[in-house]
Amino acid sequence: MIDTDALILGAGPAGLFQAFQLGLQEIRAHIVDVLPYVGGQCAALYADKPIYDIPGVPVCTGRELVASLQQQVAPFAPQLHLGQEVTAFSTLPDGRLQLRTSAGTQFTARALFIAAGIGAFQPRRLRIEGIDAFEGGALHYHAPDAAAVAGRHLVVAGGGEEAVASALAFAQAAPGSLTLLHRRDVFEAEPAQLAELQRLRASGRIQVVTGQPTAFTAGLAALVLSHAEGADTHLPLDLLLVQQGLSPRLGAIADWGLAMERKQLAVDPASCATSLPGVYAVGDINHYPGKKKLILCGFHEATLAAYHAAERLVSGRKVVVEYTTTSTRLHGLLGT
Amino acid sequence: MIDTDALILGAGPAGLFQAFQLGLQEIRAHIVDVLPYVGGQCAALYADKPIYDIPGVPVCTGRELVASLQQQVAPFAPQLHLGQEVTAFSTLPDGRLQLRTSAGTQFTARALFIAAGIGAFQPRRLRIEGIDAFEGGALHYHAPDAAAVAGRHLVVAGGGEEAVASALAFAQAAPGSLTLLHRRDVFEAEPAQLAELQRLRASGRIQVVTGQPTAFTAGLAALVLSHAEGADTHLPLDLLLVQQGLSPRLGAIADWGLAMERKQLAVDPASCATSLPGVYAVGDINHYPGKKKLILCGFHEATLAAYHAAERLVSGRKVVVEYTTTSTRLHGLLGT
Repeated sequence: MIDTDALILGAGPAGLFQAFQLGLQEIRAHIVDVLPYVGGQCAALYADKPIYDIPGVPVCTGRELVASLQQQVAPFAPQLHLGQEVTAFSTLPDGRLQLRTSAGTQFTARALFIAAGIGAFQPRRLRIEGIDAFEGGALHYHAPDAAAVAGRHLVVAGGGEEAVASALAFAQAAPGSLTLLHRRDVFEAEPAQLAELQRLRASGRIQVVTGQPTAFTAGLAALVLSHAEGADTHLPLDLLLVQQGLSPRLGAIADWGLAMERKQLAVDPASCATSLPGVYAVGDINHYPGKKKLILCGFHEATLAAYHAAERLVSGRKVVVEYTTTSTRLHGLLGT
Repeated sequence: MIDTDALILGAGPAGLFQAFQLGLQEIRAHIVDVLPYVGGQCAALYADKPIYDIPGVPVCTGRELVASLQQQVAPFAPQLHLGQEVTAFSTLPDGRLQLRTSAGTQFTARALFIAAGIGAFQPRRLRIEGIDAFEGGALHYHAPDAAAVAGRHLVVAGGGEEAVASALAFAQAAPGSLTLLHRRDVFEAEPAQLAELQRLRASGRIQVVTGQPTAFTAGLAALVLSHAEGADTHLPLDLLLVQQGLSPRLGAIADWGLAMERKQLAVDPASCATSLPGVYAVGDINHYPGKKKLILCGFHEATLAAYHAAERLVSGRKVVVEYTTTSTRLHGLLGT
């Protein structure tokens, strides 16, 4: 059981800056994120794409923004709990919040900051009736160990970098056969990866099959593929790895009894407090009059939430606006 | 008469980012600032001091932040009107706003964005009863032409970089004598300037006098200086240049009939609209519940104001949140 003043859900830009602003208030934070890395959408969806509207940063990629925010929050060393999502939430009699994650980590927190963006990112699932029953057996959404692939007929479904990288990696794992399945013969990946894919296709170590999986045969022995023209075909397999990108899901948060508006968490714009005392929502997941889903607005919201929480959590110091340029207290915290 | 969609008062961080956000909405802006340079407080008060809480910028100086914001807004080339402040404001029958500056520039605008920070910066004045009558004659707050100094006994009052730089410059203007007056013999300026000052003191071309001016003799023929110990002394002069830094003053804005709260302009936090249609206030000059006077909050406020104004000013396009990462319209505007 981890007892903390502040727990932040989401390690995207808003969550990282939330930890920074809490740090300036001398409130240490733990951060939970379902992704195995920090950065949220910036890392998962546009790591290499340019952003032009971060104030004072004429252009940066998603990855660069995340790196800068990590550097900024480094003096406060928030403790990260990645690759897990919160599955249980309750309020203790003394007002503290109790949370448990999918990895079994348990927290009690005096304040919770929900910076979960557009929701917890989940692998985009195959929508074929009945196929869920095979998950963990013949069907995987996360790459299995290389040993599990040796001698087996592996199908990797997907057209993006993750699927291509998996195919290239498993080509080294001595599979019985290796098929890359996508709706068309166009793949998005780094040039070097695409060249390697081409080389392995030419040598026969990777087959590319196009088509849309719409059904499967008994025991998931084969996928049934539909085509724009012509009859369905069958693609036999032992193992199916689906890597068709990530899709956000609000998940358990929607069931915590927090007031919602437009499918977002309704907050007081003066503080980003939700309807439950001690619970704040910042960034894309919240709503208030005038709300714009922009990263720079999340930074502002995290700041207001930190000040409001500090009024409740900080003792022995009056919470007033202090400037990082002039405050010796803040200089001490930042180690400058 | 300049007719514009948007006029921005203040070329500090909030005003510059206001022009950027208006640019993304295809609204061109003019900017007025009382200072002869852009950057507001960041340039005037802490150009060389570090700022640690700009999100995604672990550390930058005030000057660096301003340079980045100028680079960011460059695609929209807002027209600058520096060294002047707005002295007259009225509303036309058609709802447009009419403004005139101290330099005689006249504007009509469909929307006004007041990003005037803690007020218009004015030279900090000598507080000696009756001395104001000499302004423009023997007393100056802005450096006069070099020709006006030749053969005269010049006193420069001040201990900062501006006063030191003036003394160094006027030493080349063949003054009858040149005295640098400060309350103590400690000056803040660049090392090279301080070395040059030392050289000119050693050669007798600049005298340094310490003391506090508290009165003057008839015709401002001399300043009366008080000292921590000992009797008052007299400092004879022909010309007195006072460069004791800048002090903010809300100025004419307080008389425009806009609703105020805590000596700030009260705004709707959903839009940063003031009590007068078409007039917005962003940055340190506004107030709303939860307001924090931080630069990053001004960026958020300028963004909300731009969206709200766009609803009124933009035709032929639905105003919705678009992302600089993905919007081809925004890419076209930014010239990427």
